[in-house]
Order: sequence, then C-alpha cells, then structure tokens
Amino acid sequence: MSDGRPRARDAGVQIGTMDPGPLNAITDVPDVRVGHVTLVNGDGPHRPGKGPVRTGVSVILPHSGNMFREKVPAAVFALNGFGKCIGQEQIDELGVIESPIALTGTMNVGILADGLIQHAINLNPDCGVSTSTVNPVVTECSDAFLNDQHGRHVRQHHVLEAIDGARQGRVPEGNVGAGTGMSLFGFKGGIGTASRVLSDDFGGYTVGALVLGNCGTSDQLRINGAPVGLELADNLDARAERDTGSIIIVIGTNAPMLDRALGRLARRAGMGLARTGSIAAHGSGDYILAFSNALRVPHEPESPTLEFKHVVETGPLIDALFQATIEATEEAIINALFAAETMTGRDGNARYELPIDRTVAILTRYGLMRLPIHR
Amino acid sequence: MSDGRPRARDAGVQIGTMDPGPLNAITDVPDVRVGHVTLVNGDGPHRPGKGPVRTGVSVILPHSGNMFREKVPAAVFALNGFGKCIGQEQIDELGVIESPIALTGTMNVGILADGLIQHAINLNPDCGVSTSTVNPVVTECSDAFLNDQHGRHVRQHHVLEAIDGARQGRVPEGNVGAGTGMSLFGFKGGIGTASRVLSDDFGGYTVGALVLGNCGTSDQLRINGAPVGLELADNLDARAERDTGSIIIVIGTNAPMLDRALGRLARRAGMGLARTGSIAAHGSGDYILAFSNALRVPHEPESPTLEFKHVVETGPLIDALFQATIEATEEAIINALFAAETMTGRDGNARYELPIDRTVAILTRYGLMRLPIHR
Amino acid sequence: MSDGRPRARDAGVQIGTMDPGPLNAITDVPDVRVGHVTLVNGDGPHRPGKGPVRTGVSVILPHSGNMFREKVPAAVFALNGFGKCIGQEQIDELGVIESPIALTGTMNVGILADGLIQHAINLNPDCGVSTSTVNPVVTECSDAFLNDQHGRHVRQHHVLEAIDGARQGRVPEGNVGAGTGMSLFGFKGGIGTASRVLSDDFGGYTVGALVLGNCGTSDQLRINGAPVGLELADNLDARAERDTGSIIIVIGTNAPMLDRALGRLARRAGMGLARTGSIAAHGSGDYILAFSNALRVPHEPESPTLEFKHVVETGPLIDALFQATIEATEEAIINALFAAETMTGRDGNARYELPIDRTVAILTRYGLMRLPIHR
Amino acid sequence: MSDGRPRARDAGVQIGTMDPGPLNAITDVPDVRVGHVTLVNGDGPHRPGKGPVRTGVSVILPHSGNMFREKVPAAVFALNGFGKCIGQEQIDELGVIESPIALTGTMNVGILADGLIQHAINLNPDCGVSTSTVNPVVTECSDAFLNDQHGRHVRQHHVLEAIDGARQGRVPEGNVGAGTGMSLFGFKGGIGTASRVLSDDFGGYTVGALVLGNCGTSDQLRINGAPVGLELADNLDARAERDTGSIIIVIGTNAPMLDRALGRLARRAGMGLARTGSIAAHGSGDYILAFSNALRVPHEPESPTLEFKHVVETGPLIDALFQATIEATEEAIINALFAAETMTGRDGNARYELPIDRTVAILTRYGLMRLPIHR
Repeated sequence: MSDGRPRARDAGVQIGTMDPGPLNAITDVPDVRVGHVTLVNGDGPHRPGKGPVRTGVSVILPHSGNMFREKVPAAVFALNGFGKCIGQEQIDELGVIESPIALTGTMNVGILADGLIQHAINLNPDCGVSTSTVNPVVTECSDAFLNDQHGRHVRQHHVLEAIDGARQGRVPEGNVGAGTGMSLFGFKGGIGTASRVLSDDFGGYTVGALVLGNCGTSDQLRINGAPVGLELADNLDARAERDTGSIIIVIGTNAPMLDRALGRLARRAGMGLARTGSIAAHGSGDYILAFSNALRVPHEPESPTLEFKHVVETGPLIDALFQATIEATEEAIINALFAAETMTGRDGNARYELPIDRTVAILTRYGLMRLPIHR
Repeated sequence: MSDGRPRARDAGVQIGTMDPGPLNAITDVPDVRVGHVTLVNGDGPHRPGKGPVRTGVSVILPHSGNMFREKVPAAVFALNGFGKCIGQEQIDELGVIESPIALTGTMNVGILADGLIQHAINLNPDCGVSTSTVNPVVTECSDAFLNDQHGRHVRQHHVLEAIDGARQGRVPEGNVGAGTGMSLFGFKGGIGTASRVLSDDFGGYTVGALVLGNCGTSDQLRINGAPVGLELADNLDARAERDTGSIIIVIGTNAPMLDRALGRLARRAGMGLARTGSIAAHGSGDYILAFSNALRVPHEPESPTLEFKHVVETGPLIDALFQATIEATEEAIINALFAAETMTGRDGNARYELPIDRTVAILTRYGLMRLPIHR
Repeated sequence: MSDGRPRARDAGVQIGTMDPGPLNAITDVPDVRVGHVTLVNGDGPHRPGKGPVRTGVSVILPHSGNMFREKVPAAVFALNGFGKCIGQEQIDELGVIESPIALTGTMNVGILADGLIQHAINLNPDCGVSTSTVNPVVTECSDAFLNDQHGRHVRQHHVLEAIDGARQGRVPEGNVGAGTGMSLFGFKGGIGTASRVLSDDFGGYTVGALVLGNCGTSDQLRINGAPVGLELADNLDARAERDTGSIIIVIGTNAPMLDRALGRLARRAGMGLARTGSIAAHGSGDYILAFSNALRVPHEPESPTLEFKHVVETGPLIDALFQATIEATEEAIINALFAAETMTGRDGNARYELPIDRTVAILTRYGLMRLPIHR
Repeated sequence: MSDGRPRARDAGVQIGTMDPGPLNAITDVPDVRVGHVTLVNGDGPHRPGKGPVRTGVSVILPHSGNMFREKVPAAVFALNGFGKCIGQEQIDELGVIESPIALTGTMNVGILADGLIQHAINLNPDCGVSTSTVNPVVTECSDAFLNDQHGRHVRQHHVLEAIDGARQGRVPEGNVGAGTGMSLFGFKGGIGTASRVLSDDFGGYTVGALVLGNCGTSDQLRINGAPVGLELADNLDARAERDTGSIIIVIGTNAPMLDRALGRLARRAGMGLARTGSIAAHGSGDYILAFSNALRVPHEPESPTLEFKHVVETGPLIDALFQATIEATEEAIINALFAAETMTGRDGNARYELPIDRTVAILTRYGLMRLPIHR
C-alpha cells in the first residue's frame, strides 16, 4: 500500500494542463468500481510452484450492474501485443465488454479467465446453457522478478473476492492487487490511476485511466518532460535494466462512444505512455482497453434495433477527449511510481521505490513541477 | 468414435479436385501430431456444475519438439470473432505459435490455458522465471446442447494427457476430444480432418486441415455443391435450427511461409467453410489458425539475424496452396459429419448423426459424388 | 450491353433461397443510384497509350444527396488486398464514406480519385479551403487483357459524367462502365447486380450487391453448387486460364448499421464469392465495400452528440442480413456472366460470353436450376 | 529553403541519446534517395483553382534500382487514419512497396498516383500489359492554409521530375517539396529528417526518418521534453490554433526486416511523435510508413522460394531499432520546425517560422538543450 507516500499531484507535480476529477482516479467516471486482492506471502529463495508470493488481482467494473446483461462498448489497442489479452478477439468483433476486466500476473491468466466464467455463471445461471457463453477479459504483466509465477497463486476465488470488494471512491495504488509484484522504469511499480474532466462546454465528461505499470528501464523515465530517469541513474538497481515488462492501460469514460471511436482513445493512451519515456520495448506487452459506460448494450434486446448516442468526432470535443486520455494515462503511470513502495521478493530480489524527494528536486531544478500554463 | 462409419472419401464422396495425402489428415504434414481426451459421463437431467458430461479436449502439435524453444510461424483469421481464441493477440504481434493448440468446449478455455502454461513450465523450468512466459493457444466451440458446460469438466491434467497422447498417423474423428459434444449443420458434429498434397512441380508440399465443427443449421448444408441439407429437411431435429454454434479450423503446412502469408491461407479456409453452406452466423465464432512447421523460430537465438525460406507469392504455387486449403477445409468439415455418431446428452437432448446412406443417395442423384474432372 | 441476354433469374436460374427485390439490383435499396460511362474505341494491335480502348467507369451513389455533407457508415474488407482501394484507410478510421464509390480499370485509379476530388469541390466550394478535404473512394480491376491500360482512357470528366448520369431503377450489367473490359471465370465478365429483401418480421430491409467481376479461371465456376466451369471445359479460351483478375463487391443496405457491423456484412460477401468457385487467387484483388444509407453522418454537426439507430446483432435479424449478403453477392456474380457478351480487344484478344443455353442445360442436368425449397 | 537557419543539432539541441548518422538524414540509410519539386507562385487573394500556389511533391526512393522489379518489405501504421494513404491496402496484403513513396498536398493525391503509374510504365513497358499493374504509394497533408488546393497544381510531370532529381546526400528541409505549404505546431512546418546509427554490437544498422510535418497547435510543442510551445505562447498566430493538420512519417532502415516487424517500427514512430507534444488530433491524418531496403523481393522470382534474412526480435537489437525510430522521428519533426521559414500564402495567410533564438533560450533555461547522459 501507499498510504505513507503522496500521490504525484499531492507532491506538487502537475502532469499536463487539464483538470483532474475529484478523486483523480478512474472512479471519477460515474459508476466505475475497482477492486484488488493482494497476495504477499513468504520470503527467501525461489521454490517454484510454492513461493515466495508477490502477486494479486485487480478488477475494473465498468458499471455496477450485471455486465453480462448490460454490456458496454469497448475497444483494445495492442501497441505491443507481446502478452496475453484474453477476450480481445471478441471485443474486436462485437465492440463490447461483457465481464469485469481483470488484471493479474502473467501466469495467472488462465485461472482468472476461469474465475470470470464462474462469476458470470453465478450471476446468470442461463449463461452457457440456454443463452450464449461469456467472454472473460483478462490481461496481465509479468511479476517474475519478485514473485513465484509458477505457483499461479491467484485462484478463482480471488477474482470473485476482488469483484465483491470492488468500490467506487479512492483507488488504492502501488503494491496492490495485480500491481503487487510489478516493476516500472527500474523502480517498484504497480497500480496507478488518474482522471481528467472536460469543461462544461464539452459536456463535462470524465476520462479515467488505470494502469498496471511494469515496463521500462530506469534511464527512460520522464516526468512532465524532465529526464528524471537519467538524473536518478546512480540510484538504480542494475537488475532492472532489461526492459522485459509490460503495461496495461484501462481507459474509462462516460462520454457516449462506440467501439471504433474508443479505439481512437486507446491509440492516444499509447501517446500518454510515450510521454513517460517508454519505447514499448519488445518484451513489453502494451495493451490498452478503452470503454464507455454511457451506453449499454442489452444481452438480448427485445427490439430489433437500438438507439445509440455518440459523440461527434469532427468537433473539438473529440480532441479534448484525446488530450484527456493522454494526460490521464501519463499521470496514472507517474502515480503508480509515486505510490509503490520498495519490495523484496523471491531470491532476495529487491525493487526500490522511486525516491520522491529526489524526484521532486529534479523536477524543481528543471522547472517542470508543472507546465507553464498562462490561463 | 466413428469406427463403424466410413469417411466421406471411403463412401465415394470426392470433395474438390486435388489429391489428398496418404492419411487424408492434418497428420500428413510431417511431424504434426494430434491428441484427444474424451469425457463422456452421466445421463439424464442437467445438474449444472455436475453433468451430464459430453466434452473433451483436442490438441494439435505443430512439431514433435519443444514448442516454446522452437516456435512456428502462424496467423489467425477471425472470420467471425464471437468466441474465445486465447493467444491470438500475441500471434498477431510476433507471428508465431509457441505452445500446442488446444481446442475444447467454450467454458473450459481458462482451465486449458492454465494447463498449457503448466505444460510449458514442465518442459521449460526457466519459463516465467528467467525467460519470458508462454502464450497458450486455446480456442473453443460451445457444447451447451449436450454437455454441462458449467462444470468445466476438462481439467488441467486432461490437456497434459492429450498432449502426451498426441500421435502422428490416423486422426480419430467425430465424437472425440473437443468434438465430443458438438453439433454441425443440425447433425452431430465434432472433429474432422483432411489434407491435400501439391504436385512435385509445386514442391510436393502438404496442406492439412483439422476442424472442430459446431456450426450451421441443417438447411444450409452443402456437399460438393449439392443442397444436401435442404434435401434431408424432413429428418431434422427441430432444436438444431438455431445457428448458435461455431467452427474452429486449424490449417497446417510444411510449405515454408511466414505469418503474413499464413494469414492469406487462413482467409481461404473461410472460403472452404463457405462451400459447405455456412453463413458464419452471428452466434458462430469462426476462427482459423494457420501454421507452417517448415520454419522454426528459436526462443532465444544466438545470432542477431535469422534466415527464412519463404514461398514465392507471385507464382502459381501460392494459388495451389490456396486451393489446397479450401479443399482440405471443405473435406474436413464433411468428414466430421460422416464420423460423428448420434449422441444423447443433458436433459435427453439428442443430436442425430448424418444419415450417410441418404446423403450418398442425394449426392448420387445430383451427380455430385465427385466433380467432373477431365484430366 | 446485355439486352439480348436474359439475367440468370429470367433464364430460370434461382440462386439461393431468399427473395430478391423488384429490380433484383442494388438499386432496390432506396435512394441508391448507379451510373456508367463505357469507352469502346479502336481495334487491332496494342498501341500502348493509344488503344484499343475497352474500359470505363461505374459509380455507386449511396444516396441522392451531397455525400460530403451527409456521409454514410461503411466498411471495407480486403479478402485479398492485391489491388488498389483508394480511401480504405480513412473508412477504417472514421467508419464513413463521403464520396461516390467509383470502379474502373486498374491504371485509371489516380485519375478517378482526382475526378472525385473535383466532384466534391464542385458541390462544396469550401472543401479543402475552409473545411476538410474529401476522401475519394476508387477501386478497380485490371482490364489488361482487352484494353490498353497504359492510356488511362478514363478521364476526370468521365467520372463526373457517370455521376451525373447515375440513376435509380434497372442497372445495366455486363460490358458496361468499369465492366467493359473485364473477364470472369474465363468468360467475359463485368458488372452484375442482385438484391435480397428481408421479410417484414425482419423489418423488410433490402440488401443489394453490385460486383465488378474479373476473377477466376473457367474450371472454378460453380452456379448454385453445380460445377458449370468443369462441364464447360471444352469451350474455353486457353488464355483465360491464369487467374490474375480481381473482383470488387459493393454491398448496400437500408438496414441501420454502423461500420463495425457493416464489416461483418463485408466478410459474408466473401462467402458469397466462395460459392461461385473462386479461390481468391493471389493475383485477384478482392475488395468488398459495405455501406448503409439508413444513417447519415453530417459533415459538421451542430450538436456535440448524434443519435444512431442500429440493428441488434444478437437476434435472427443479423443472420438474415448475412444470408442476404451472401446470396445477393452470389447472384450478382452470376448475373455479370449472364449479361456480358463476347468482346474482342487489343491484339485480337477475345473473351467469350458464357454460353447460356449450355449453362442452363448443365444446371438442369444437375437439378440445380433452383434449390429444393420446401416452404 | 532553409539555408539560413541551423538544424536543431547545429543549434546545440540534441534530441535523445543515440548517435545520428553522418548526414542525420534518411539518406544515411545506404541507397535511399530523396527528391523535391517545390511550387511557389502568386500572391494575394485566393482564386480557387488558380492560386496562390504553395505546394509541391517530395519523393523517397527506398533504393536506386527499379522498385517495380525489386520491391522492398514495408508496413503502414495509421495512428490516425483521417487522410489519404494510397497504396496502404496492398502493402498490408503483400508486405512490400513497389513504387517510390510520394508525399504532397492533400488534393494532389490522385494526380500523383497517376504520375507514379506513368513512372512505372516508363520503366516497365510490360506493367499492366503482360505483367501485373503497379501499386503507387502516395500520402499527403493539407496545405489549405497557404495554398490553393483546388488547383491541384502538382501535375504528373512534377512527380517524375522529383524522382529524376532524387539524390543521396543532404536532404533539403522545411519549405521544400510537399512541405512547402505546411504548418507545424502553429509555426511554419514542412519537411524534416534525421537518423540514428546502432552500435557495431547491433550490426551498425541505420534508421532514418523523414517527416512531412503539418500537425499540432502551438501550445502542444515540446522539444526534448521542454514545453516550448507554452512558453512561446505570446508569439502565436491565432489562426493556427485549430489542430487540423496531419503528419506523414517515413521510416527507412537497412536492418533486414519483413513487414510485420516493420509494422512494429511504425508504431514506435508514433511514440516519437508523441514526444513532440502531438495528441494526434482528430483532424490530423497521421500515417507512418516503414521500409527496409536490406531485402529485395523480385517482381517475378524464378525460384519457387526465396531466402530472407531477418533481425531477431527477442534480443536487445530490436529495442535499439525501436529507440532509434523514436529518436529519429522526434528529431526529424524538430528539424522541420528549425528549417521552415516564414511564408505568406493565399489571402495573406501567414505562417511564422519557429523563433530559433527564443527556442534555444527556452531550452537552455529548462536545461534541456541535451539530455543528461552519463556515459
């Protein structure tokens, strides 16, 4: 957890130029909930299949209803598809998500897909009997450096617990849920989130980002444009210098958008990632999922046609949504770094937290604690 | 099983104009193996989560080596992406398959992905520890009509057993493995396979197809162009008339081809499906995976570059490969129908086998037992 | 032209099982218009850049308004992307078409794109000045066998004339417009069209297809499943036996559908093509464009959001639309063959018309003049 | 032209951390040539179709041979496909480019496609007669602000002249060729180029970028991470504040890579664009083309298979290529800004050059003239 460490904005670091929502979290998007189950157990040498355990599961629920009965428009962009993104192929075809979105350590993905299937069955006894089956959405980053991945310590019941525990409000960040064992730009990484709110002129829509941050090498890290990673170079854990991680970015909005337009948001999230210095290295599976919960697609509509409201893509509103996506993504990644605390895992592998004081000092020296906005 | 029923060609039905390989199976592609685990248990009313059980797992092994260490080029085409095709996203990015290909009933996919992860760990203790994780490839059709899907009766060990039992040689068809509980064009469906061999002028390459056939309504079925389904209409089980199934088509070849060109083969397999009368109905998740085992991509090559041989795509060879793919797919689907025997499952649901005698009579009447080839 | 030859249905050949619209043409879709300009000039040896001329342009106008001001949802599927489909990339991004769709001989595509730009300027003087530019949609098949392609004899003014002359009502088929110099399954090919109308239970929507047919070898041709090409084998022009053509298929509907769902229709049109025996050979650029004119996307909407009606994709309506697409495509291709008359072009190259009497005799012998529908 | 203004690096601005090639241009990739034809004519009010003229054409020749006879592997990534990228669809299918790559003002694309067709005919009299036709590659940005687009003042002969004049060596930047009438981040934009060279450990390969820069608003501009645009805000031309431009990025390399891997490079170029502050606004058609000239695909190979060398994608080499792509793209964009000089066009519209002195002062103040590299 990260209670002792400030979020970036609380430390005075203002990413971008748009205003965040009240929580500066994906949960600023009305009706979105996030849940985590964190598994930390054991120390010492790696006993493959046994431990130590540094892993977990995080879930994002696009709305508080029954996702199988009320699907939401969605899209996936594989900036670098080296990784698992179970469910992507059906999202591509039908343009909707019909299950909670689960994030976890790489080798847990099969178990979590199975857990989401059980979740759908529990809520919908007809699922896979008298109506169609469910498309579970599970994606991942590798927590191999700290965690015993062979054990797949996240079980089916953990994902059910994460869903049950999902809440609106403040989102725990850093070493929680799927973020428990992750590394980010050579430092300890994990879960981060942020949001942006459009002006009333643009409908007052909210865009939220939640990331599972596990990518990059320390020299790459940039914050608000400042080359923080290069400046912190003497603080680095040498073992972090291979960029073999990944990042999962989930974008949620209450702007009414269908799948194609959400795919456009997803591609912009990759630009937010680029601003943090990432090169989307080969070993980094960089997936972005974007959904809108302003629209609901019933599982089996009564009528032969549905009506959808959709944002106009030719006016300035869409550009505001693009910029909100980029900024929320960028800040969510930095928030993950600010929140995550030093952790030791298997074989004594240690991943050190971002030194906030030094980071703030660097940003101050570069004059980049905030951008020079002259409103 | 199907020992009492002839394959289409043995019954005198010759699909297309090219010659099959000696086994007329995907195992005509050198070094390809197929394994099945079939689960049939219980009768009577559906007890969700308990039974009756009519399901299984089938695996295709592109070569006999360690798939994680020696990957093969591959591509996926989602003709209708309503279904699960775990692993597609990484195949799109990297152009290779690095695990056995597992087929099963829809709700088992999470468990099988986990089973394939275990399989990779067993063979590669460094997988997910000191080297990257594995991308399991699992796809499915729904056996809901006959099987208790809620029970996910296929366990991790079943996929390991299917892999262990995978063999070259004759491929069991019909109600075996993943095909156990499937329906096809209103009749009992399941596993089918076929192959085509190119002439020596074209390198003598083999193209094999294996299908998990679970799609279509009875009126749609065409064999060699004859409207067999419409002719058999009075024989139909009324409950089969909703087209909510799927079909998975796996194409293997020993022609040296990389991912892009294999994607071209995959799209042609969809044309083979079309010849059987399918309309790729909404409810039918129609995925095609194509691989070549003539090329091997080492997991971590020593050298900075590799050499690949690749078929020339501008000459007649590629068209021969296209036609071989179409014909092998068409015949594999018909073989699934010929092999599958009547089965009763949950709630007394019965799916009846294709009446071979009447089918042959219809084809004879239409003069389409074979095409009029004047060589 | 084809006034002396019956259309397939007029000759008693009934493709598929659904009912066509009153015109059995893409113009059964309300407000769709089609125009042709046909260029036939000169004989004798090929004088590159000069003649002989056997080419033209065909245009499909999704509605009778200003396409730039009122765009329509659209999608493209490249079954075999060996060819030019100018405009596809923007259709992919924005999901709309904003110009007439122009078809022509391959080497004319640049000139026609320029002609469509001029057309947009003529109607919209602000286009490319104070508002955005236009995305012309031009696609093609090669008429190299009969025509002097080097001359690009279709000029900008021809596409303007084709648009001006576009009409609702009966659509000329065969050797007209872009179809003038085309070959199809070894015979003379060109323009063909057909339609299907859904029952009132399914909203009574119409699906129309128009093809520019220039693909296939004579042995491949199947009609209603019958191997007509193989039966006609002794009638063949040997020079047609290389499958280096292409086919363009345009699907229009008044069912309200957005781009993603239209992409699903486009993939089904490829299945209609497969039913005619095509293998989508390497040399054949096989593009399918699908649009719905039930929805209009204003160029610069006043409001920040729009409302769209959209067919439900989970019910039987979508499957009826899929089947309508397949059947209309199949019949449009056969209509192209029935309409096109023998033509001689450059260097005395001759492409012979499908012998309708023999074709009918073959279909009669196979019992496939119509499918055995027991209503 | 830009002879009076220093390139970014000559002004002391060092983008990124890798070393450029000797020319710091795409022409550092051996055998790549670039040509421009620049059209500047007339002043005063806009006379649509007549002038003033501020446009041109730029061509990139991947090698000095006959592109139609010796194609090169290539890929396109549409970061934002609002624009024309003629030829993309065939590049997607076949993975090669077979013509020079032409860049121009938007409304000239049809004419230039026709010009490239003529170019192919001139070199290959069999093209479109006895062998297949050519796939011209033409992409664009809108020069509407300064230029009379309606006149399509670039003619077929201009693209032939640009090809004839294409040279290795130093590449003119700024207001040349297609860049003549372009705007970039609210300032005068146009052509820019840069390169990176990998160390000998990584084969010493070169990656070059050439951009046609026409996107962004002034507040967005970042250089080496510094918020230059926000700092320069009082210098802005108000009319530039709508982000309706585009950017075309061409990446060339002599590292042996096929189409799929080149697509990965293309996606990284989008990350280089992101570093300059772009949000890929709706109105900005952002296309990236990547090619390798280390491999040649013969038009009609004699043999049935070819051999390809290909970089290994699992080692650090690929990451170095990714980083090189990002950095070369970023620097090419900044070079376009440094080179382009103030220009007045139609209706007195003026686009002002980036004030280099003030920019350098800002970068100096932020300490970002170069990154803090501790080698």
